Amino acid sequence: MTNVAADGVPAVLLALAVILVAAKLMGELAERVRQPAVLGELLAGILLGPSLLGFLDPASSWLHLFGEIGVVILLFQIGLETDLKRLLSVGGVAVTVAIVGVAVPFALGYAVCRMMGLPDLESVVAGAALTATSVGITARVLSDLGRLHDVESQVVLGAAVIDDVIGLVILAVVSRAVTGGAVTAGSVALTTAAAFGFVIAAVLVGRVAVPPLFRLLARIGRPESLATMGLAIGLLTAVLAHAAGSALIVGAFAAGLAFQPTAHAETIARGVTRLGHFFVPIFFVSVGAAVDVRTLGDPRALTIGGLLIAVAIAGKVVAGFAPVWFRGRKLVVGVGMIPRGEVGLIFAQTGLAAGVLDGGLFASVTAMVMVTTFVAPPVLKALLAAGPGRPRDAGGAAELVTEA
Amino acid sequence: MTNVAADGVPAVLLALAVILVAAKLMGELAERVRQPAVLGELLAGILLGPSLLGFLDPASSWLHLFGEIGVVILLFQIGLETDLKRLLSVGGVAVTVAIVGVAVPFALGYAVCRMMGLPDLESVVAGAALTATSVGITARVLSDLGRLHDVESQVVLGAAVIDDVIGLVILAVVSRAVTGGAVTAGSVALTTAAAFGFVIAAVLVGRVAVPPLFRLLARIGRPESLATMGLAIGLLTAVLAHAAGSALIVGAFAAGLAFQPTAHAETIARGVTRLGHFFVPIFFVSVGAAVDVRTLGDPRALTIGGLLIAVAIAGKVVAGFAPVWFRGRKLVVGVGMIPRGEVGLIFAQTGLAAGVLDGGLFASVTAMVMVTTFVAPPVLKALLAAGPGRPRDAGGAAELVTEA
Repeated sequence: MTNVAADGVPAVLLALAVILVAAKLMGELAERVRQPAVLGELLAGILLGPSLLGFLDPASSWLHLFGEIGVVILLFQIGLETDLKRLLSVGGVAVTVAIVGVAVPFALGYAVCRMMGLPDLESVVAGAALTATSVGITARVLSDLGRLHDVESQVVLGAAVIDDVIGLVILAVVSRAVTGGAVTAGSVALTTAAAFGFVIAAVLVGRVAVPPLFRLLARIGRPESLATMGLAIGLLTAVLAHAAGSALIVGAFAAGLAFQPTAHAETIARGVTRLGHFFVPIFFVSVGAAVDVRTLGDPRALTIGGLLIAVAIAGKVVAGFAPVWFRGRKLVVGVGMIPRGEVGLIFAQTGLAAGVLDGGLFASVTAMVMVTTFVAPPVLKALLAAGPGRPRDAGGAAELVTEA
Repeated sequence: MTNVAADGVPAVLLALAVILVAAKLMGELAERVRQPAVLGELLAGILLGPSLLGFLDPASSWLHLFGEIGVVILLFQIGLETDLKRLLSVGGVAVTVAIVGVAVPFALGYAVCRMMGLPDLESVVAGAALTATSVGITARVLSDLGRLHDVESQVVLGAAVIDDVIGLVILAVVSRAVTGGAVTAGSVALTTAAAFGFVIAAVLVGRVAVPPLFRLLARIGRPESLATMGLAIGLLTAVLAHAAGSALIVGAFAAGLAFQPTAHAETIARGVTRLGHFFVPIFFVSVGAAVDVRTLGDPRALTIGGLLIAVAIAGKVVAGFAPVWFRGRKLVVGVGMIPRGEVGLIFAQTGLAAGVLDGGLFASVTAMVMVTTFVAPPVLKALLAAGPGRPRDAGGAAELVTEA
């Protein structure tokens, strides 16, 4: 119809096929060596990305779009599996982990950069890139390991969503500071209120409006229509969250939470899972592709990067131990908060685009993102295998060998 | 990661949600009035498109991409359900229908345009736009009606795939003529051979290579991995077909045909169907959105359009009756070949972009596409309901009222 993408469609289909095969193969390989599949998908991204094979351009807009759809679907799925009551029961713990987990890495990261002689604004941006956990990566690891319903997982999930919202507020503030805009206490408070207010409003409205809406839909439509309608509402909520100053994935998670107690949650989850098999790996491959391993070659970037990695890990582990009254395994919570993934990259990208970060500091931040993202899944897996709880990893491995 | 589509992602998610809801509602509505769901999806496209609500821009590259993925998945699904032996058993009939169904509309369309005083090249392009059936629309209608395995459906499917390949050859030749290139008998023969050769090669290679490949995959992977791998191979075959000078959808259909006899066809089909629930309606909505109903306001465009509609319908009905030895219902075959859908629009678009078609003739061709696309589904439904065969439409209606 249009000639804009006429030549592009076959190229995109080819890239999609390669992404699907690479993600699947590397994911199965990761599971063979008893690691979460997501690690393999991230590695597939590095492999296909510009630093190795150069097959995928992480800056191409279709890849970005498909990846975003993937992470929105993933968080919608996670929300559909999350019991709000259980989440709220660890609410105090999660809020504490989130706040400490933002404040400590930010302060330490800023201090490290200043210590290394970097200017003030640059240090603020680098510190900000350390704040937010990638909720997508953490949730996927817990889901891969079958531990999404553990109490520690609930804390990590709650805290990661909260610090994602805090991270967006920081990003908004930093972006304004970077572009020379005025940052007032009032504007920060307003952004914060909008971001958190949306989640609360979405869940409240959802709890009231969703059951009657779905009773109506169930009367007029088929099961697959329900799944499609559920997905459409999830997408709309994500867009509304974005419009309210919160994040797409926060809206998708809130929509999932609102659906979870309804009788149709399982129908929706089934339909969305299949779509997830297609879109979610694209997200992780795109995150992997955005990581440039060549940055590991620059000594100065490596030094600052090493320091950032140390405070990035230490800061989140400290956050895990912050709620001293929490009776779960604090180290699991801390490690679960470590991966920075795409959120850290977005900060670095914003700083680079605004000219605040130079190539060297950008490389350091990228190295931090890479290491935190790749270190957390195997450590989390080892911790969960060593500790008490359902031995789901053995089951997972068995699942892999049997075949229908 | 990239800023290219950073602002665009929420807008696309919103559009996707609206498309899914509109397609679902209009599709169910169509079924309520005992029409194929695809008719409702096409109407949803017109409704959302520039001529009415103006919500969807049919020229946006993401919509084009998602629609193409949709039609590729649809033809892959249809291939997965198509028995090659049964298809070949009506091969002679299908080839006859295809050739007559290309030649007669082309000749009549050219004659009509010349009669109305249009120049030679313009008449050729308009005639060419009448040649190819939209295999997507026809296959979807037959599938909606549960009649995909009728002998008439096999003929229509075979003939539609063949005339799609012929249509592409004509498009290549016309594009060359339009841009002033030399058209030799040799180049036409080469294009034709490449286009048809690919389908034959793909099915042959697929029959030999697919079963051992899938036995291997089944040993190492999970069922959902098989579905993903199957889809990836389908996408790759589509891309190869395109590279060989054939069409994406022809490659996808050939891949489905190659998988169909394997033990894993059902696993793949199940996985792909869910993905289809998402992507396929986007294709039909995008086709609908590309149709501009405002063109119906211009009297001269309407006159030529009316003549083109008459020869477009008559030409395909004649083609249905061409294989005189065929013992199936020839009118069903002829009517099944009527919808021109996106294929006709691509011709018109190519002519318009090259400056060969003026706005008036473009509008006439668009009117032809619109009427043939919208008239065929209800007529086909009425014919199939009136004739002998499994009374699946009654079952379809019952399915609609009951609900899980």
